[in-house]
Amino acid sequence: MEPAPRRGRPGYDQESLLAVAVKVFNERGYEATSMEELSRKLGITKSAIYHHVSSKDELLRLAMDRALDGLFGVADEAQAMDGRAIDRLEHLVRGSVAVLVDRLPFVTLLLRARGNTKIERAAVARRKEFDRLVTDLVKQAEAEGDVRPDVDPAVTSRLLFGMVNSLIEWYKPRSGVSIADAVCTIAFDGLRTR
Amino acid sequence: MEPAPRRGRPGYDQESLLAVAVKVFNERGYEATSMEELSRKLGITKSAIYHHVSSKDELLRLAMDRALDGLFGVADEAQAMDGRAIDRLEHLVRGSVAVLVDRLPFVTLLLRARGNTKIERAAVARRKEFDRLVTDLVKQAEAEGDVRPDVDPAVTSRLLFGMVNSLIEWYKPRSGVSIADAVCTIAFDGLRTR
Repeated sequence: MEPAPRRGRPGYDQESLLAVAVKVFNERGYEATSMEELSRKLGITKSAIYHHVSSKDELLRLAMDRALDGLFGVADEAQAMDGRAIDRLEHLVRGSVAVLVDRLPFVTLLLRARGNTKIERAAVARRKEFDRLVTDLVKQAEAEGDVRPDVDPAVTSRLLFGMVNSLIEWYKPRSGVSIADAVCTIAFDGLRTR
Repeated sequence: MEPAPRRGRPGYDQESLLAVAVKVFNERGYEATSMEELSRKLGITKSAIYHHVSSKDELLRLAMDRALDGLFGVADEAQAMDGRAIDRLEHLVRGSVAVLVDRLPFVTLLLRARGNTKIERAAVARRKEFDRLVTDLVKQAEAEGDVRPDVDPAVTSRLLFGMVNSLIEWYKPRSGVSIADAVCTIAFDGLRTR
């Protein structure tokens, strides 16, 4: 089957096709979105989509990897750093905020994944691995005396990334406020004046 | 139509029917769940469901109200308190954690609502009102000199409740860790040792 006329819409490459697909998945849900619907939104035929990706699942996998590769890239940086665990933890938090801001639609899709498909389950497993890295850093920072000993490392890592991940619900680019600074000020120094 | 035999399942009142419905909505999505499916899960006929509620929408409204009434109950308490804004803010945070823990499935449904129906839009509007109350308390606490002046009140209120609301993703009842204490320790005093 030949691609239908594109009705004035630009051609897609895999990257721009993925961007539209992820937007639609976030609006309507991955499972609720059919390839038919995607082809209508894109203004190209299904066979034109299959020129770029083998399946809807592949779109999901590409999107999840975009988010996870960003987060693990930052985690690798943090682990390669010399120095104290609290500084590696701060690097990881700041870097994760940057990844969320930069790849917001991809991370949104990742964080809403409930493990309903094989690809979602693999993504959820990588998220758990990431959580363990954060928990380990909190533990190390406690052992080094830089993080207060009266917080549970697993709970702390969940709450810390509860703050970071909440960006998918409310973040709008705004001038004058560094979200990474705000997260680190609250998390490391606390809101209360000394 | 008479209710079908209940095949050994207990009878429902509105409360227990709502609990099952909310569980199914959280697992499969509100829109994706049909009254047929609900009736299968409950083991009663659709007409038996309609004895308790007028529609699927009413189930959603009841569930949203259960979550929102809990949160606004705590907000009313906080606003009625004498004393400093930072203490009212802490009361609100602790009370909200208690509501989330106590009404987790209802709050989960609330926080996942995207405003796709009239009832969801009303719930989203009440959530925004709640966010404004939190932001106002942060502002007052800053004006009273108790909260550091270098944090943006709107961003702070989002991050604070980003932490609280993350409970729907990870909270499991566990002994020995007070989540409210953990949230308040991190948010007000910070992780760093002094």
